[in-house]
Amino acid sequence: MGNISAVTYARANRHRFLHELKEFLRIPSVSALPEHQNDMSAAAEFVRSSLLRTGMENVSVIRTDGHPLVYADWLNAPGRPTCLCYGHYDVQPVDPIEEWRTAPFEPAEHEGNLYARGASDDKGQLYSQLKALESLFHVHGGKLPINVRILVEGEEEIGGKHVAQFICKNANTLTADVALVTDTKMLAPDVPTLCVGLRGIAYVEIEAHGPAVDLHSGIYGGNIQNPLIAMAQIICRLKDEKGKITVPGFYDRVAPISVEEKASWRRIAADIERSLQDRVGTALCGEDGYTPLERAWGRPTLDVHGIIGGFGGDGPKTVIPANALAKLSMRIVPDMRPAEVITQVRNFIHEIQPSGIRVNLREIQSAPAVVVDVHDKYVEIAADVLRQVFGNRTVFVRSGGSIPIVSDFQTYLGIPTLLMGFGLPDDNTHAPNEKFGIRNFFKGIEAVIRLMERLKPVA
Amino acid sequence: MGNISAVTYARANRHRFLHELKEFLRIPSVSALPEHQNDMSAAAEFVRSSLLRTGMENVSVIRTDGHPLVYADWLNAPGRPTCLCYGHYDVQPVDPIEEWRTAPFEPAEHEGNLYARGASDDKGQLYSQLKALESLFHVHGGKLPINVRILVEGEEEIGGKHVAQFICKNANTLTADVALVTDTKMLAPDVPTLCVGLRGIAYVEIEAHGPAVDLHSGIYGGNIQNPLIAMAQIICRLKDEKGKITVPGFYDRVAPISVEEKASWRRIAADIERSLQDRVGTALCGEDGYTPLERAWGRPTLDVHGIIGGFGGDGPKTVIPANALAKLSMRIVPDMRPAEVITQVRNFIHEIQPSGIRVNLREIQSAPAVVVDVHDKYVEIAADVLRQVFGNRTVFVRSGGSIPIVSDFQTYLGIPTLLMGFGLPDDNTHAPNEKFGIRNFFKGIEAVIRLMERLKPVA
Repeated sequence: MGNISAVTYARANRHRFLHELKEFLRIPSVSALPEHQNDMSAAAEFVRSSLLRTGMENVSVIRTDGHPLVYADWLNAPGRPTCLCYGHYDVQPVDPIEEWRTAPFEPAEHEGNLYARGASDDKGQLYSQLKALESLFHVHGGKLPINVRILVEGEEEIGGKHVAQFICKNANTLTADVALVTDTKMLAPDVPTLCVGLRGIAYVEIEAHGPAVDLHSGIYGGNIQNPLIAMAQIICRLKDEKGKITVPGFYDRVAPISVEEKASWRRIAADIERSLQDRVGTALCGEDGYTPLERAWGRPTLDVHGIIGGFGGDGPKTVIPANALAKLSMRIVPDMRPAEVITQVRNFIHEIQPSGIRVNLREIQSAPAVVVDVHDKYVEIAADVLRQVFGNRTVFVRSGGSIPIVSDFQTYLGIPTLLMGFGLPDDNTHAPNEKFGIRNFFKGIEAVIRLMERLKPVA
Repeated sequence: MGNISAVTYARANRHRFLHELKEFLRIPSVSALPEHQNDMSAAAEFVRSSLLRTGMENVSVIRTDGHPLVYADWLNAPGRPTCLCYGHYDVQPVDPIEEWRTAPFEPAEHEGNLYARGASDDKGQLYSQLKALESLFHVHGGKLPINVRILVEGEEEIGGKHVAQFICKNANTLTADVALVTDTKMLAPDVPTLCVGLRGIAYVEIEAHGPAVDLHSGIYGGNIQNPLIAMAQIICRLKDEKGKITVPGFYDRVAPISVEEKASWRRIAADIERSLQDRVGTALCGEDGYTPLERAWGRPTLDVHGIIGGFGGDGPKTVIPANALAKLSMRIVPDMRPAEVITQVRNFIHEIQPSGIRVNLREIQSAPAVVVDVHDKYVEIAADVLRQVFGNRTVFVRSGGSIPIVSDFQTYLGIPTLLMGFGLPDDNTHAPNEKFGIRNFFKGIEAVIRLMERLKPVA
């Protein structure tokens, strides 16, 4: 213990911290796939025992109808603020597995990066929080400078339904002043970044039901609606070739991007657009009248994630399938309402369904967009901490992605969230060869330490 | 042997013939799926040993780069015509397996039908030929009334490339006067039917390549072309909502349906359309200005058989896939040329490819349409034989399906084909719960016996 600072302690233990993170990454906790059920329990248990070792109290695994939550707290700093930390131990599926250069669940170090599914999203970033807590407890004689709750879920990649239910149900006891989420990205290496806005999401499955049974395209082709073609027609009716969504009423509540925001985004646009461009490998394109950054942060969009039906094997099977299914999502912005968007799409597809086809729509996930005030006192402290850790002025960005938990913190607990992310734009999250900068892992620990030490005087 | 007729012999052996057919149907010879490699060999061997037992000569399994062919002949009737018999021992995949009421490879008798994958298409119908040969040999003292060659393939359901190569390569030695194919359907029970026309096919795979890697739809959504949406757009550009194919030049060579054909089709339309309707379960619809029968037999069409790309599992994976693939086919009619059709589609999709998407097209299978003259002498004999066996006048139909081998017989051997089919419209070929009428199996044997006995005097 002695007189060393928490940051010094963290630096002295880097090797062990990295070793422990690798252990965490070896657990293939893919929440979307039922065959990983046991791995989900193992990952929850890993988080639980890590929290126990830090010094946190009330460490518990909370069963849900889905994957378990892990909760812990330390609330022995009366009169000081309470920070609700959040992370997730689940990861995305690894397909297409053949595109990985190293095994997704065998962490591999290469040129300062750690390659593994979940390295950046979110195990590495979550583990930064845990190691910050350990460091603080260690140098403060088994205490923390502020009150801390931590809530870790295993369903972030599949909709986070149960953590939302837990927060809703325990809204009265989960008191906190500010939430801390480390699940976002920095603009570029050494450019500290606070995310102050997220798009929401409305994720649905659309089914098109055609003939009563699968049919031979030779005998029936030309006389019936093919559900796959009908699905293609429906998709084309939802979004035009210029990227404009054509569902009636869809844009009615879209808040315009303010002149001030447009100006501030313009200053950082070049780097972000270059980074998008680099990953994509083709020209950026989208809705007319908006810059790429405005499209990504301030405009809604619609994407198809999969179309299922018919024959996917090799060779010429000539089937007209009885049914087709499309998985698709809309990213939504303030002040759109997810339930209303879903109703609009449902009504529209019923209106346009081709004769001979019955359609139905099922909601899979939804969350409203979130925007945090850049002049909030906690946001200002976090920005200053990041400047100190990375040596550059903190920039405020939004993300085109969705973190439904942030809406839940806002809706149920009435608290703002600090989206302090340490990922980089080329981390390949949700894709093959995901990685996390090892340096960012360590800087993340230091940032969380300093944030908790700085939040203290605000009480 | 003695004085009994071949038909009497066949009737006396029905029980055994059905038992043997069930053995054949138990072999899961799905040509499209690599895991059935051994089953393909087993099915070829089953055909070989069945042929050996009949009395055929030169019985041989012919290796190809794909699944083997089985060939046999009996050419000891000088001065008499030679009939080239054809069938296939491969079957369609069974998916969706959950919709089968009985196991697809455990033949089940129910209300006079035999349920199994391949029962009608084509093992049951092929076996009718084999048992007709056995019956003829048995009662004619080990001889046949005509010369017979038989060629059985294992790739009919996956394009039949190797049998086509074999016929092309051996065109000079595979001499014959007429071909016999038992792989089509009767109009209705007890309505003997000769098929005198088949649509051709042009089966292709279209790939749409978008971003360099799979991307997160939150970060990139709104700024890139989604290959699945691009594929939907391409599909919508190939065929309009009224069923008209919009590929430039596509209809240029389409032979109009003659007034005589229209009139003859009108006389049998009601039954066929009712049977199509019954299976489909929804209203028939298609190209304006044509009856359902005209659309099925005399008009080209386009169908999508599968769209592959992105995420097909449960839950909300938010991926924009790097690539999407569609499997689709055009059914073509006289005088369209498959290679030209494929070139037209290839050129068109390159012309319409959305910016940010590269498309390519791969040919999987193609065959021209075939029409046989109803006044051909062999066609007239076959029609009379069928009338005798089923007790009703034979009707001449076409099929909307494609049997590429018939084009090969025409192109390489210069012979007409008798498409004498014993299937029924509700046989569920290419779909769950395929069946074959047991009575039709037996009638098929008798029809082939009588045909071979009647072809004799034509020499």
